[in-house]
Amino acid sequence: MSMSDTPVHDLRADQGDLSSDITKNGKRKTIVMKFGGTSVGNIERIRIVAQRVKAEHDKGRRIVVVVSAMSGVTNQMVEYCAELDKLADPKEYDAVVASGEQVTSGLVAIALQALGVPSRSFQGWQIPLKTDDAHGKASIEGVDGTLLLKCLDEGIVPVVAGFQGLGPNDRIATLGRGGSDTSAVAVAASIKADQCDIYTDVDGIYTSDPRIVKRAKRLDRITYEEMLELASVGAKVLQTRSVGLAMREKVKVRVLSSFAETDDESGSIVVDEDEIVEKELVAGIASSQDESKISVRHIPDRPGIAAAIFGPLSEANINVDMIVQSRGADQFNTMTFTVSKADEAAARDVLEKAREDIQYGELETSHDVVKISVVGIGMRSNTGLAATMFRTLAERGINVQVISTSEIKISVLIDSAYKELAMRALHTAYGLDQEEGINT
Amino acid sequence: MSMSDTPVHDLRADQGDLSSDITKNGKRKTIVMKFGGTSVGNIERIRIVAQRVKAEHDKGRRIVVVVSAMSGVTNQMVEYCAELDKLADPKEYDAVVASGEQVTSGLVAIALQALGVPSRSFQGWQIPLKTDDAHGKASIEGVDGTLLLKCLDEGIVPVVAGFQGLGPNDRIATLGRGGSDTSAVAVAASIKADQCDIYTDVDGIYTSDPRIVKRAKRLDRITYEEMLELASVGAKVLQTRSVGLAMREKVKVRVLSSFAETDDESGSIVVDEDEIVEKELVAGIASSQDESKISVRHIPDRPGIAAAIFGPLSEANINVDMIVQSRGADQFNTMTFTVSKADEAAARDVLEKAREDIQYGELETSHDVVKISVVGIGMRSNTGLAATMFRTLAERGINVQVISTSEIKISVLIDSAYKELAMRALHTAYGLDQEEGINT
Repeated sequence: MSMSDTPVHDLRADQGDLSSDITKNGKRKTIVMKFGGTSVGNIERIRIVAQRVKAEHDKGRRIVVVVSAMSGVTNQMVEYCAELDKLADPKEYDAVVASGEQVTSGLVAIALQALGVPSRSFQGWQIPLKTDDAHGKASIEGVDGTLLLKCLDEGIVPVVAGFQGLGPNDRIATLGRGGSDTSAVAVAASIKADQCDIYTDVDGIYTSDPRIVKRAKRLDRITYEEMLELASVGAKVLQTRSVGLAMREKVKVRVLSSFAETDDESGSIVVDEDEIVEKELVAGIASSQDESKISVRHIPDRPGIAAAIFGPLSEANINVDMIVQSRGADQFNTMTFTVSKADEAAARDVLEKAREDIQYGELETSHDVVKISVVGIGMRSNTGLAATMFRTLAERGINVQVISTSEIKISVLIDSAYKELAMRALHTAYGLDQEEGINT
Repeated sequence: MSMSDTPVHDLRADQGDLSSDITKNGKRKTIVMKFGGTSVGNIERIRIVAQRVKAEHDKGRRIVVVVSAMSGVTNQMVEYCAELDKLADPKEYDAVVASGEQVTSGLVAIALQALGVPSRSFQGWQIPLKTDDAHGKASIEGVDGTLLLKCLDEGIVPVVAGFQGLGPNDRIATLGRGGSDTSAVAVAASIKADQCDIYTDVDGIYTSDPRIVKRAKRLDRITYEEMLELASVGAKVLQTRSVGLAMREKVKVRVLSSFAETDDESGSIVVDEDEIVEKELVAGIASSQDESKISVRHIPDRPGIAAAIFGPLSEANINVDMIVQSRGADQFNTMTFTVSKADEAAARDVLEKAREDIQYGELETSHDVVKISVVGIGMRSNTGLAATMFRTLAERGINVQVISTSEIKISVLIDSAYKELAMRALHTAYGLDQEEGINT
């Protein structure tokens, strides 16, 4: 199965009600269960994971498990590499850090066998789960589901080492931070699983960060598009790439807690829009503080200025997010935009080299900004939703510095001091507050 | 290359003086450098290993590195498995414990690159180093040297994860404790290396255990046969299997310290007998306390008694080492023999079940015994060497309980209280004491 090249095909065709164990066409449900680093953080936790898997297995379901490394292990490995060489060869870095998932895959298989559940571990190269050559942050090119399906047919629970795959020339490749979510979705697609359950340390996807917005509520369902926008602006529950892959491959993803009792109704499900009956206009409010605001001031007003600024940045592989151009009373322009904090130094460097070409006056950088985003499929049709945002912020005296929009998202850049105030006000304004403050 | 099936062929044919970098036929020397767990025990030690490898590489030699796991890591992995299931599936156990060598292979490659030495890691499955299906203590079936030789031709130093290989059905297999020595020898054979250097925490092979016999001296050279006998009776410097493989494949093995300055003359070399010009009659005195003595007493004197005792033990896969039969004044026999301590309980069990068949009186077990062995190729021709042993022990009032011999070894079982006395006396009697007590 190729992840990148095949057209989207409907894997859900034969899928029935989630709460039933048998699909419409009489097949047993196939479910991928993915457990993150804290869920397998020690031997006792691994035993609990095995019990969870056994419970699903005992229902007659066909289960594939995907695991991360025990929490802390990957960081230790990264540290070892960095101690030897800050710019360690990504191929060797991958061989070192992929060991963490190798260990947990074997341990979970042992724990399952100890409970009487037939099981075996799979490393990325054994499946194989093939990747491109971008070692350290590789993309999945294809997963061969043959061996996994063979195990399922034989009643064996495969335990897949997440985060890792087989790159070109038979080298071990890792998918980058959060890559185990992507492994799980890719494995689910390869075996046409009915669902991909991501067990994590939160119990679902919320309308906003519950640590900031006490009245945030858990969403039962959210669309891939909304989840993608939320993930990309700071909701760290699911890795953005895994959501994109799930959307392309139409894998139903569920996020639920591995630290609480759960059943088939627990957590939040990420699905196609047409599977959601009662659509909310707004799904959630997210924030991101990974932005640096750069202002290029006192630029003479002449054509081609935007190209003179953004061309060199693009050539240097610097991603520009929000952009606003303004003209002062002096007839000179100011171009303000954001880049990720990691790119700030490189962006300054590029712009200083292009100073003569652009003929600007000053270059200003600010970190004291936060991007607040309202995400929801209702944005497509309901223009009043944007107005609600600006009015709400204006009423609190919050100045909007830059605006950007996508089809289902409006983002504003504001002074970071107003972050919590803005999020809570917007959460209330869009009617997202739950009635009882369960999270307080 | 098949380890088990091919006839022994002479890999040394094109080999010149060890102290020269160019072999007789003008080729650059190829050397395998193996580093044990304490030698790669932390990042600082890994840096020192890389410096050692670089020094050899800079001489123009073609180097392949083989590494163990960082000391302590394998034990941690074994413990994890045992915590989940004392009888963990050996295939999963292997996936878990093999991760330790994976980590060090990558880290050593990174450390070499940081010193400007082109390098890459190899896992067992990447080479491949193929094993049988005896997971947890697998035997090497063959090593494909193609990729390693390709690296050497390109000036790249391969760093091989020791201890692990690829078993049947693409599963990870480990070779059992000390298996990295065997990996190193097998890799050396596959690429027809001129020498296999085993860097460890001692500086060579001694005539006896220097902790017991202060005047023990380091041997410059020792034959495979002698090393095999010494390794099998408790000299823990080299794993027995690795010595056997080196002998069959005629791989020249050198043991030297990774904690001291070394040069081409350092350490001890294990070679074919005909490469040793001045042959010592006795190579060393070793001891083993892994013996349990079992005495089956009061057996009626009739034919077939030995078969009645040793047949059932053999069927139960219990290896019997030393045997002596004696007859008392009462015309009844006593059969005394040794088994390894691990097999003692099973041996008692077998014998108690066979009590009616053998018709013996009592069954006695003793742990207070030690096996002392004198090893040397001189044993073959010089019968006086055995007499020296018995006279020496008799003079100290040490009672010999059981005797066994091989072509180049005499072993005696004595009361363990006399262990140190016997070893020191024999060391002196065979003229092995070094003149100055360097080790005191």
